[in-house]
Order: sequence, then C-alpha cells, then structure tokens
Amino acid sequence: MLNLQACQSIINKHLNAINLPGLPRNLYDPIRYMLELEAKRLRPSMVLMACNIFTDDISVSVYPALAVEVFHNFTLVHDDIMDKSALRRNNSTVHVKWTPDIAILSGDAMLIKAYELLSHKSVRGLEKILPVFNQTALQVCEGQQFDMDYEYRHDVTIDEYLKMVEYKTAVLLAAALKIGALSGGAGDSDADLLYEFGRNIGIAFQLQDDLLDVFADAAVFGKVTGNDIVSNKKTILLVEALNTGDDFAKKNLLEWIGQKDFNREEKIQAIRQIYVSLHLKEMVIQRIQHYHKLAVDQLNILPVDSEKKNGLIMFSEYLMNRKK
Amino acid sequence: MLNLQACQSIINKHLNAINLPGLPRNLYDPIRYMLELEAKRLRPSMVLMACNIFTDDISVSVYPALAVEVFHNFTLVHDDIMDKSALRRNNSTVHVKWTPDIAILSGDAMLIKAYELLSHKSVRGLEKILPVFNQTALQVCEGQQFDMDYEYRHDVTIDEYLKMVEYKTAVLLAAALKIGALSGGAGDSDADLLYEFGRNIGIAFQLQDDLLDVFADAAVFGKVTGNDIVSNKKTILLVEALNTGDDFAKKNLLEWIGQKDFNREEKIQAIRQIYVSLHLKEMVIQRIQHYHKLAVDQLNILPVDSEKKNGLIMFSEYLMNRKK
Repeated sequence: MLNLQACQSIINKHLNAINLPGLPRNLYDPIRYMLELEAKRLRPSMVLMACNIFTDDISVSVYPALAVEVFHNFTLVHDDIMDKSALRRNNSTVHVKWTPDIAILSGDAMLIKAYELLSHKSVRGLEKILPVFNQTALQVCEGQQFDMDYEYRHDVTIDEYLKMVEYKTAVLLAAALKIGALSGGAGDSDADLLYEFGRNIGIAFQLQDDLLDVFADAAVFGKVTGNDIVSNKKTILLVEALNTGDDFAKKNLLEWIGQKDFNREEKIQAIRQIYVSLHLKEMVIQRIQHYHKLAVDQLNILPVDSEKKNGLIMFSEYLMNRKK
Repeated sequence: MLNLQACQSIINKHLNAINLPGLPRNLYDPIRYMLELEAKRLRPSMVLMACNIFTDDISVSVYPALAVEVFHNFTLVHDDIMDKSALRRNNSTVHVKWTPDIAILSGDAMLIKAYELLSHKSVRGLEKILPVFNQTALQVCEGQQFDMDYEYRHDVTIDEYLKMVEYKTAVLLAAALKIGALSGGAGDSDADLLYEFGRNIGIAFQLQDDLLDVFADAAVFGKVTGNDIVSNKKTILLVEALNTGDDFAKKNLLEWIGQKDFNREEKIQAIRQIYVSLHLKEMVIQRIQHYHKLAVDQLNILPVDSEKKNGLIMFSEYLMNRKK
C-alpha cells in the first residue's frame, strides 16, 4: 500500500508537470506560485490512497487527485482575500503579492482548471465523480459563508459550529476519499463508507487545528500560536466557552472580544486561562477522539482486507498525533 | 424553428425553477438576485437554437443552456467587483448591494452551479461538451485579465485588442452554439462551423457595443452614452485612434486620458469629435460588417436545410441591427 510520503511525491511530480500557458502572466503566474508553495498535499494523497484500496493501478486517480488539490488551492486564494490574510504557507498571499482583483480572477481560473483536470480522458467513472465534486464544492462555499456570518455572532451554537466545520473542511477530505475510491472502481457503498471515514476524520482534523492554535508548543507548531484568539475567530474553544461557560467566564470573554486596543500576549494568556479554567482542552480532546472513533468504525466495516486499510489507518494516526 | 423570443421564455421559465437552498442566505440570495434581473438571455438562447438545428427535442439542451447563462452571470458578478461597477442591468451590483466578499463567494458558487447544471443527467454528449466548456471558461478569464492589463497600457495593438474581445466575449457565444449543437447530436465538423459563426458574430457584437457607447441615441440606448470614454476604457475606437490617429489627435487623446479633473460632457464631446475627425465610426462599421460576413459564410456552408438556419440568421440580423 502507498504511504503518505509516496503519495506526496507522486502529487508533486504531476503538479509540476501541469502545463499552464505563459500569458496572461497576471492570470497564470499566481496559479504557478500557489501550486509551487511547499504543502502537505493531504487531500490529493487521500485520493490516491483510497484508489489504491481497490486497484494497484493508481494512475487512474492521478488527475482526480490533482483536481482536488487545485480546487483546495483555489479556496485558499479566495478565502485569503475574504479573511484579509497576508501570509499563506509562510509566504505572501496572492492578493498581497499581486492585487485582490488578480487573486479573484486567478482563483476563478484555478476552479475551472480543477474541473479540467477532473475531466481528463484518463479518468474513469466521471459520471459518478462529477456530482460528488459539484456537491462538495458548493458545500465548501456554504461552509465559508457560515464562517463569515459567524464572525458577527456571539450566539453560535455548537451544532452550528460543527456543521460549518463539516462543510468548510471535512466534506473535501471525505470527497477526496470517495472520488479516489470511485476512480479505482469501488462500489457505491464502499465509496460511501470511505466518505464517512473522511468526513469524521475531517471534523476531528479541524477541531485539532483549533486546539493547536491555543495549546501547541510554538516551537514545534512552526508558527505563532494564539492567532485565532487575537482575531476573535470562532473556534470550537470559543464556541464551547460561550455556550457552556459560567457567567463570569462569558463576561470576561466578551470583554476581551470587544477590546479594540490590547496587548497581544496579555489577551492570549487571559483567554487561554479562561479555556483552562473551563477544562475546554479536555472537552475538545474528547470530541476529537469521538470523531476519530466514528471514522475508524467506518473503516473497520469496509469489506476489504485489513492490510489494504493500513495506509488510511496510518494516515489518520498521523493526523491525530500531529503537533502542527 | 425556435425564435429568440420563444427561447427567452423557455430559459426564464427554467431559471425560475432552479431550486437554490435557503441557507446560507448571504451565499444564495445574491445568486437568486442576479438570475432574477431582467436580461436578454442571448447566450442560452443560442444553445437552444443550435440544438434545434439538429433535433426537434430541444429538452436535451435546456440544462447546458442554463449552465451557460449561470456561467455568464458568474463572470458579471466577479467582473463588476474588478471594474468597480455600481450598476448592472439598472440595478445595484452584488458587491455594492452586499459586500465584495459576498460577491466573490456567491460568484464562486455560481461557477460551480454552472458545472452542476452542465452535468445534469438529461445532458447527452457530456464527454464532448465538458472540454468545450472548460476551455471557454478559461479563455473568458484570460480575456478579462488582458482587459485589466490593457487598462494601464496605451500601446495596445489592434490585434491585441481583437484577441481580448475574442476571449472575453466571443468565445462564450461560440461555445454556446457548439454546446447546443453537440447536445442536439451534431457531428464535430458541424459543431465547429457553428462555433466559428458564433466567434465571428461575437467579435462583431462587442465592436458594436463599443460603437453604441459613443454613437448610440441615448434615449433608445436606454443608458447614458460615453461611459467608456469617461472611464478611459480601451475600446476599438480608442485603440484605433491611438494606433492610426495623427500626432495631433493622439496628443489630444492622451491629454484627456491623463486628466484627473474634467467635465464629463466636455470630455465625451471632445473625444467623440476626435473619433469623428478620424472617421472611426465608418472604420468600425466596416470591421463589424467584415466579421458579420465571416460569420454568415460559416453558416452558409453548414450542410443542413437553409430553413433550419433561419433562427440563427434572424438572430444575427437582430444583433447587428440593435440600437442598444
């Protein structure tokens, strides 16, 4: 079975070989730039691994994998405009390095390019793959819109938050697996089991991301922690605190959220302390384990040799144990 | 044969029946808003008419037609952000009525929705239609990028301008016809003839748009003329003038272009006068007739009963004789 490292190397080789036109430079240079930034290639690797469960010939899933990665990068380019992010993968975001207009248009071209890759003649089962891709792409947009809407609300429920995470993050991991499985010739019910595995792992993945921002070891994490706290981002921790915290904790939190002028480290320390006092780290870890277990349960009932599932089991362990 | 009016009514009926989710409202309300604005539905009508040449059952082309219209509206939403336009079809643009972020994301969702419509189970020949759609969509982005790049250049050649027009406007009309033909069961060479008809009509269409902005009767045109002049937009008239005008005319033009403070009507009158003195109206009319003839030539060699071509002939006459 292919492991993550082998998949990453296949994806990078093929991404480098995508032949984009030279002109207009302001359309295609940003796309090249995004695709050349060092990245973990988790989603396209999931396409390859899922395909590999059903066939040794993973070449049939290379183009769907590239489509998923280019789609993911499209979402990053547009999300970075909306989130006013200056950095992506330790480099300038497209809208900062070029302009917001160029980021809009090159993002659009990436979305179209993703469909072009998906429609490559090597792809088998396009009539089943395309509806999964379409539905997922729309859900990702819905998730981003919910995320933006929640920025202005302090009464977001935990269910609303989890649905946002599911749409914004988890369904693309789920679809990556389902599309890989379908391209490898899987039947519908097997493909759906992998979708559910991916959806649950995806939710666990995002919750862990929220946790790492607050509680990771900054040296290992590789970036400054506390960014979500500083920007008042609705994370599982903030939503849990606002939903389950006592009045004192909630009042304290809302005061920090309302502050325009504050000392960065002081705010991070104060809110981290509120989270600690409410035992939220443990609560979130329990949630992560809950979704991880749901995911593994799906994989366990997938009727294929357990040896074939090893790649995905190791992958999910890697995701759950990551420190960054 | 179906005429334009019949096609428009079919398209509007089916557009109204597209069932968009209620939530998130900020994602789907702008899409509903755009699709409900009164519009001429030229492109989707071309899909239906081209299909109708090859089959009486135009139901097979309804979803591709909707896809083309939704795609076109996606480009309008994003272009309006980039062009900082406040009005679209006499109503507020999405980025003004909502926000630029919402316009980016709902535009993205429209592009995805276009692919979803194109992949509808009623569509025949998707394996041929999808590559046409993908290539065209990318070219439209390229055209828009060239257009933005040319804003800062005063040395755009006529060939560069015509290529920009071809990509930004003409290829979508061409693709609409080709997709309609393919959905109706046309062979490749027939579909390609219709593509070439549409490409040439599309260039003529845009050149006429440029002309109308300067020389239309404002009362008939239905909107204020001279907007392209005021905004220094590179039109065939401005590009022709900068390429073929004498030194005096060019100096005069560049001075007006460089002015930050000016009287709107004075600028329009002055530049219109330069165009008149250079006989550009006649020159552009000649170009329009040239492309119109190229288009009709393609249609003439299409090996089907001439009666079946009547819809498109009348359509092209309508486009060429429009006053707005």
